[in-house]
Amino acid sequence: MDGIIQTILELLDAKKYSRARDEILKNNTVDIAEILEEVIEELGIEKAIILFRTLPKDVSAEVFAYLPIDDQIEIISVITDREVEHIIDELAFDDMIDVLEELPANVVDKILEKSTKEERRLINTFLNYPETSAGSLMTPDYISLRKNMTVAEALSYIKKEGMDRETVYTCYIKDEGRRLLGIVSLRTLVVSDDEVQVGNLMHEDIIYVNVLDDQEDVSDAFKKYGFLAIPVVDNEHRLVGIITVDDILDVIDEEATEDFHKMAGMAVSTEEYLDMSVWHHVRNRLPWLFVLMCSYVITGSIISNFQEGLSKVIVLVTYMPMLMGTGGNSGSQSATLVIRGLALGDVETSDALGVLWKELRVSFLIGLVLSALNFARIFWMDGQSTMIAATVCGSMMLIVIAAKTIGSMLPIFAKKVGIDPALMASPMIASLTDMVSVVTYFALASFILGI
Amino acid sequence: MDGIIQTILELLDAKKYSRARDEILKNNTVDIAEILEEVIEELGIEKAIILFRTLPKDVSAEVFAYLPIDDQIEIISVITDREVEHIIDELAFDDMIDVLEELPANVVDKILEKSTKEERRLINTFLNYPETSAGSLMTPDYISLRKNMTVAEALSYIKKEGMDRETVYTCYIKDEGRRLLGIVSLRTLVVSDDEVQVGNLMHEDIIYVNVLDDQEDVSDAFKKYGFLAIPVVDNEHRLVGIITVDDILDVIDEEATEDFHKMAGMAVSTEEYLDMSVWHHVRNRLPWLFVLMCSYVITGSIISNFQEGLSKVIVLVTYMPMLMGTGGNSGSQSATLVIRGLALGDVETSDALGVLWKELRVSFLIGLVLSALNFARIFWMDGQSTMIAATVCGSMMLIVIAAKTIGSMLPIFAKKVGIDPALMASPMIASLTDMVSVVTYFALASFILGI
Repeated sequence: MDGIIQTILELLDAKKYSRARDEILKNNTVDIAEILEEVIEELGIEKAIILFRTLPKDVSAEVFAYLPIDDQIEIISVITDREVEHIIDELAFDDMIDVLEELPANVVDKILEKSTKEERRLINTFLNYPETSAGSLMTPDYISLRKNMTVAEALSYIKKEGMDRETVYTCYIKDEGRRLLGIVSLRTLVVSDDEVQVGNLMHEDIIYVNVLDDQEDVSDAFKKYGFLAIPVVDNEHRLVGIITVDDILDVIDEEATEDFHKMAGMAVSTEEYLDMSVWHHVRNRLPWLFVLMCSYVITGSIISNFQEGLSKVIVLVTYMPMLMGTGGNSGSQSATLVIRGLALGDVETSDALGVLWKELRVSFLIGLVLSALNFARIFWMDGQSTMIAATVCGSMMLIVIAAKTIGSMLPIFAKKVGIDPALMASPMIASLTDMVSVVTYFALASFILGI
Repeated sequence: MDGIIQTILELLDAKKYSRARDEILKNNTVDIAEILEEVIEELGIEKAIILFRTLPKDVSAEVFAYLPIDDQIEIISVITDREVEHIIDELAFDDMIDVLEELPANVVDKILEKSTKEERRLINTFLNYPETSAGSLMTPDYISLRKNMTVAEALSYIKKEGMDRETVYTCYIKDEGRRLLGIVSLRTLVVSDDEVQVGNLMHEDIIYVNVLDDQEDVSDAFKKYGFLAIPVVDNEHRLVGIITVDDILDVIDEEATEDFHKMAGMAVSTEEYLDMSVWHHVRNRLPWLFVLMCSYVITGSIISNFQEGLSKVIVLVTYMPMLMGTGGNSGSQSATLVIRGLALGDVETSDALGVLWKELRVSFLIGLVLSALNFARIFWMDGQSTMIAATVCGSMMLIVIAAKTIGSMLPIFAKKVGIDPALMASPMIASLTDMVSVVTYFALASFILGI
């Protein structure tokens, strides 16, 4: 890829535009978009537009769809209205909606002026679906067949219409009220005899989603059933569009990214890291840092209570970070396993007891090993008294067990009461286990050492 | 779904097997598998087998493929050899390989005995591909066309072979040496005229993967190009199989899960949480907990050095957990953003300076806000001296900046030297920032307070 980009940059620099075009057209449309992106970055929009204009019309529209939004806006701002109109015309319906969603309102209005009343109505409906709903992912460009068509009639209809539809591999059969009756795959049509009626081939036990379903439910359906496309219906069970699997791949990544962000104590962002402004980053990160910081007011005041005793046995402070750190890490492990298990459906809230029993055994074993190792270190290497070693190791044992219990149970509890389990990850768990660690440590110290 | 399961459990309990069969057959195969799983769990394998045997042969094989591996082994252990043979015969090739991979060796041998020498050779080749390679995901059941076939000939070939292939929507054209020449979609075939030659319709700029490529590269290719299937070639560029998009959905989840586990300081596991033994859990979690615990030996010895001064101003200990916790949380946020950015390709190692500059500004602003809030609390609410408030707040500022710098730079550095960036997440970053926090805090304390 880097080699091709280099060649094209050099050709453009030398103003060899038609050779540059020949070179770029040897690539897949997705790669052409990537190259063009590079050209915009390296040589500026003017050179890029010259190259863009040499592309065949159908290619240029598709390339446009694959460009990042910033580049799309830049291109639209320099090409003629006629060219904009043409690109919008050539785009697949769902790509067009994606572009329109990002463009400034005045540009959208200008584009919509040119469309018919019916088109405008449809576009506006699609623009109004919530951002992460099934409606925002779907396209109305599907193949619709009639029940009483023969296979031959269906195939000749697909031959005529097939190039303009999002997919032809799943076809949809509706009744007079636009309600979904059945689906038939192109595979079934192609292996069936010409005179068979579509109604006899169609599947009627259809898996579908509602237009307002969250994209996570849509991607779960794709993962479960392995479909290439899924129909989307409205509340009256009328077919309003379809979602194809290629649009779901990004959704699966987005859903995972959402969980990653939440699990690190941040607001979820769909923008790319480098594209996001400093202010936006601060706004996403500060609130949780603040909330978690406040939780340490409690931890601090617990320590305050033990201040006097602590100053007598100041060496105890030395082991505090280790106990707190290990507690946090132990809790995070359990929380991550349970949160991910809940997200993928491997763990259910009804498994709470099973999870607890497993974590208790795991944490007992881990606590045992870590305590033993610590005892050896504190007693022999650090040369501390048996009492101090016992205080630290006893705390370690209790802290690991408590941390793993909290880490595993809190996400399940959150899910049960309708809070996103992903919020119960490292930062939250670490703050809680820090509190528990300090209390355990000092309670044990006052019991064993009498501080 | 729960209602259907309940009905079927009741029918089986009442020994109404044929009614149970009629009820279960109303569902999608994936759902039938889910119901059967429930039956095995609730009523035991004997009842489940009775139901399983009433299913039509093609349905039962497909249902079998969707069952969890434990249930598959249990079923195989109770049905006759003839039935096993039949199921294996009916399975799609890639599903068969998945089943064989999990079965005990003696069962596999018994099954392979029944196959032809050629089949055995092919199965053994597939069984030997590394677990997360393209080879382990692919199937050899694709539609292969000849260049000089007409569209009519191609379609009639697909009509004959189509039902037994993984997909018919992308067809492959090879030369005499089995090297891949081009691909053609069924859509193109269906919209083209009967007499056109396949060679004139095929795409020759093919995106493919190597049989030993990692599954992550395969899923990246699917995400980038939005294909329904991708061809897999060997080192001699011969077509050895294809991977279809439905198998990639799980891979994307698996890759994210891998990162989640690594980012919580655990060995990666593909097994479900509840299926994994206590020992296995301990083995996956203990090593990192131990390594991270050791890092606190350093943190502890830093504190040791300040012990004497600390016992004079013991109140400083009160604010230690807050500073360490906030440092850890700040660092984790940055690390998560950068790790996820690297995984999705939004951030490259060459962006290091851009990331650093952004993090410095973000952390300066966040540090400023948190320090100001703390000053107010410590000075007015806790009633501490200006000097102590200044020590804590100055430390907070420096710690947030250091934590965000470490958190953002370490994953990029790791990637540059070939270590998985996901390992540089919360636990690792928290241990490091804890060290930095302690040093910063005490250094500033000795400077300001002279301890």
